[in-house]
Parts: sequence; C-alpha cells; structure tokens
Amino acid sequence: MEKEFKTAARLEAESMAIAKLPLSDLRLNTDARFPWLILVPRRPAVEEIIDLNAADRAVLFDEIVRASNSLKAISGCEKLNVAALGNMVRQLHVHVIARFTDDPAWPGPVWGVGEAVAYDPPVRDKLIARIREDLVS
Amino acid sequence: MEKEFKTAARLEAESMAIAKLPLSDLRLNTDARFPWLILVPRRPAVEEIIDLNAADRAVLFDEIVRASNSLKAISGCEKLNVAALGNMVRQLHVHVIARFTDDPAWPGPVWGVGEAVAYDPPVRDKLIARIREDLVS
Repeated sequence: MEKEFKTAARLEAESMAIAKLPLSDLRLNTDARFPWLILVPRRPAVEEIIDLNAADRAVLFDEIVRASNSLKAISGCEKLNVAALGNMVRQLHVHVIARFTDDPAWPGPVWGVGEAVAYDPPVRDKLIARIREDLVS
Repeated sequence: MEKEFKTAARLEAESMAIAKLPLSDLRLNTDARFPWLILVPRRPAVEEIIDLNAADRAVLFDEIVRASNSLKAISGCEKLNVAALGNMVRQLHVHVIARFTDDPAWPGPVWGVGEAVAYDPPVRDKLIARIREDLVS
C-alpha cells in the first residue's frame, strides 16, 4: 500500500476507539444524545464503499451487520440509521446510529442537529465495554 | 410469506420505478435537485437491513454496489451518500444519492432540506433510461 492508514482528525476528535474488527476500527461517537457507532475501514485513501475491493466490501458489510445487531440489542432502540455519507470527512466511515422516537433529532437525520452533549464518563465506558464484549468474543 | 410486498405510499409518491433487480425495486427519487436512487427490497414487513436473512442481505449489498457504480458513472458526482434510515417510511429502503459540492444541501445531508424540484420530464426519462440500460443488461 502506498499510504499508511490514519484515522481522520475529525473522527478522532468526535469519537473514541472501541475495538479493532477484522477490517474496521469500531468507534463510539462521543455525542451522548445518540448511541452511535462508527466503522472506519483501515484502508488509506478510500472514500466510497465502491472504492474497496470486493473482499474488503464483504468484510465491511459483515461488520455493519454485527455492529447493527449489537447496537440494537444493547440500546433497545426503535430504529437503526446506517449511512456512509462522507461529505464532511472524506475518509470512508459508516455510521450505525440507534434512534428513538423521543431523541432530539427524530424523525430527521442526526447530522448537524444542535450541539453534541458529553457522556457521563462512567456511562460511556460501560457502553463501550458492553459493545466490546458483545463484538469481540 | 405471510404478507404481500407493497411499496410504501410515500415512496410511491416521491419516486418512479426504474427496474426490478433480483431483490429490490430500483426507483428514482423525483426531486431533480439530487440524482437519487432508492432500492426497495421486495420483502414485506422488513424495516432493518439486519431483518433480512443472510442470503437476501448479500443480494442487497450487491445491488447497493451496482446502483452506486452506475449512479456515480452517469452523474459524474463528487461524492455518494448511501443510507438506510427509515425514520419516516419504515419499510426498508436504501438511498444512493449523487452529491455535488454545489448542490443545495452540501455538505449536509439531503433529507428534509428545502422543497423538492420537479424534473423536466425528458431529462428524467433520459436519466431513467440510462440507469436502466446500465443496470439491466
């Protein structure tokens, strides 16, 4: 590979590492308003799902399903939002977000809505631990 | 299957049929501001990607990749947005949207932004024909 993988600065700033899955770094967005996972495939210079080769794409899709199942079970959410947008941060990353009908963005999308709210650190660490335990075993 | 597949009324109202892919109906959102495909798996009572069985999921992921490649090639877009949200219309559907840095929602998401603009019918029909030709062959 020509370039080394490095997580985009904005993703680093807005999320915390949970686990390394086979292809992707799994991260928790630190906005406490929405239980929100982010998958970042460790492939440099890739912006679109279709830029991945077929083998990597299959792994990413599997990781999306695993992250979705885990987040739904742990959060008890009403709906999942799964999205690869990348308008702001071009590095390929996939959002898996737990939505509730009483969350502050419902029924709209979460991006760009209001101000992020910090987690209470013990709540955040417990959530990270539960997801890690569920996904890395 | 217990229930018969039927496209949600709001999807019917806001998009037009392009083609039947192996799993999904491929539709064009009729908002001319954004070249915007929608995949609707023909499975009744399914709301989440993780509600599909593994075989259907694999077909859906393949159809997302095919729709993405086709839309990017035909639109010449700067970025793709791929998303399964379903907060408004619960029936599982996947958005594949061509984004441009000068489009009216950039760099935010497109959902809920401003008012839809109708296509000039010949432009719309030509776009549908090009996508159909590219994907169904």
